[in-house]
Amino acid sequence: MSHSPTMNDVARVAQVALKTVSRYVNGATNIDPVLSDRIAAAIEELGYRRNLAAASIRPGWTSKMVGLIVSDLANPYYSVLARAIEEELGQAGYMLIVASSEEDGGRHDRLVDRLIEQRVDGLIIVPPQHAGRDWASIPPPIPPIVFLDRPGSHVAADTVLTQNVEGAATATKALLDTGAKNVAFVGDSLEIFTIRERYRGYEQALIERGLEPDPRLRFDTAHSSEQATIAVDAILADGTADAVFAANNRASIGALLSFNAHDRHLPLIGFDDFEAAPLSSPPVSVVGPDMERMGKDAAVLLLARLRGTDAPFAEHVLSADLILRGSERAR
Amino acid sequence: MSHSPTMNDVARVAQVALKTVSRYVNGATNIDPVLSDRIAAAIEELGYRRNLAAASIRPGWTSKMVGLIVSDLANPYYSVLARAIEEELGQAGYMLIVASSEEDGGRHDRLVDRLIEQRVDGLIIVPPQHAGRDWASIPPPIPPIVFLDRPGSHVAADTVLTQNVEGAATATKALLDTGAKNVAFVGDSLEIFTIRERYRGYEQALIERGLEPDPRLRFDTAHSSEQATIAVDAILADGTADAVFAANNRASIGALLSFNAHDRHLPLIGFDDFEAAPLSSPPVSVVGPDMERMGKDAAVLLLARLRGTDAPFAEHVLSADLILRGSERAR
Repeated sequence: MSHSPTMNDVARVAQVALKTVSRYVNGATNIDPVLSDRIAAAIEELGYRRNLAAASIRPGWTSKMVGLIVSDLANPYYSVLARAIEEELGQAGYMLIVASSEEDGGRHDRLVDRLIEQRVDGLIIVPPQHAGRDWASIPPPIPPIVFLDRPGSHVAADTVLTQNVEGAATATKALLDTGAKNVAFVGDSLEIFTIRERYRGYEQALIERGLEPDPRLRFDTAHSSEQATIAVDAILADGTADAVFAANNRASIGALLSFNAHDRHLPLIGFDDFEAAPLSSPPVSVVGPDMERMGKDAAVLLLARLRGTDAPFAEHVLSADLILRGSERAR
Repeated sequence: MSHSPTMNDVARVAQVALKTVSRYVNGATNIDPVLSDRIAAAIEELGYRRNLAAASIRPGWTSKMVGLIVSDLANPYYSVLARAIEEELGQAGYMLIVASSEEDGGRHDRLVDRLIEQRVDGLIIVPPQHAGRDWASIPPPIPPIVFLDRPGSHVAADTVLTQNVEGAATATKALLDTGAKNVAFVGDSLEIFTIRERYRGYEQALIERGLEPDPRLRFDTAHSSEQATIAVDAILADGTADAVFAANNRASIGALLSFNAHDRHLPLIGFDDFEAAPLSSPPVSVVGPDMERMGKDAAVLLLARLRGTDAPFAEHVLSADLILRGSERAR
């Protein structure tokens, strides 16, 4: 055969209708097994291969790709989410394009443009710290969007969040319960939704227990674990704080590095579980959502939109559960 | 305007040649700044957007996407590689589709097919433990491939590897230098290239030092950290081994979990650095490559192919450097 084999060739060789071949290659499962076997044999014989790039520009066809924008794919928090999303989308025949915004609005906007140019069928977005342009300013069509981890400004979108306020309050109270009086807050910028909410939960817990939040105990410059280490070095040098609430996994790791360097471990609870948490000495207590569940939820919401659901846009909020491993106690 | 704006519309409004608009939207940097500004203004005015899906099926155009297949994106080893690749490709205008083979040859093959259907311009592949079909059996065209971490069977491909034998020998000797006589090997299946090579380096080091490798000290069933914990539990219960060489980051983490559970820390060195390594007590000594460099190298090799280089296919082998943090000593 001198040309690339087409679906028509497959239909001819398999002696079935073109429509049936089309349904087969698009993953329909309710095809007569006899026809299905004939199609599979014809595809193998001819070396037929779908051209999804061509398919995606035909009316009614899709690219079968979803774009995911996270802050930083190298942060295990995001790679665990990405893996869960990949798994769920893969079962429905979608592939995942992953990109990192680095919390930068301009970069995020360029990535969104690229993904739309690439004709992705849907987007899962962790909105960056520094917001990009308004979604309303982007010329349509915009594919279905799910906002993950942080709410987005686009109204027509599903959202998957964590109980940030509640989880932070739970963690702070657990530290107070072990006898701490001056719990320091160590986290990234309060411009980030999750960190702001977690600070709110930390404050609420203090106030509920009759304590005054002390701005000198608020350290909100810890974007990287290195910056968190610097903050916790300062906390140890100052001597006022008698416990640390770390607002994300970078902050927890920075606190551990500082504690180890000074061989002095204040009681510690971190938001979001991380691989190193059970390995340190003492193992780190954490509060946070089931991350695999969180990624899966985002993918399931998007898949429902891709199947055309017109359900009202939903906000899924996952519970943040406390896992006590020992680091919440003084030693 | 009733239709989606085209490059012709942009050229008309900007009063420049279509060819110049085409060069602009494809990222050429040597365009007269006056024309460049006019084109940018016209693009904004018209809301012009490239259709890369359409572009990718025209002769000479590309999809501007690269496919990456790793074993498991949730393993930080692979997410750090993926992030480095994303960064390097992004600077050249490419987006990255990431997928996890889970070491399964059939799944790997289906992912390769999907990525080729998606008309990716190139592939970066970590070959799975259980090899898929022969690359020669895949109908052309196959885009340029770079094999990462493990060599692939396709001859026409660049490869990025680590000095597995040398690194493992260095780690094993470092353990012997601290007085160990019976170093246990804990790792994933020897069917995996990297693990097999590391076992070879471990054996070589023992033989060089006049020691007989003892098959009872070889534990090669540790795919997950949980399985590594079970292996190290058995090592501790048996009592013969007086040190552990962990052949990858999963094995290191499993060893740490077992040591912590039994409050008994044998001297330990692991292959591949990992985030938790400096955080445990004692901090874990490791041997391994610069992972960001490794990802970047793979992307640079692929980009050269995408630019049409006809250089002979290369094998880049990164050095595996020893980082001593304390866990190599008995305590």
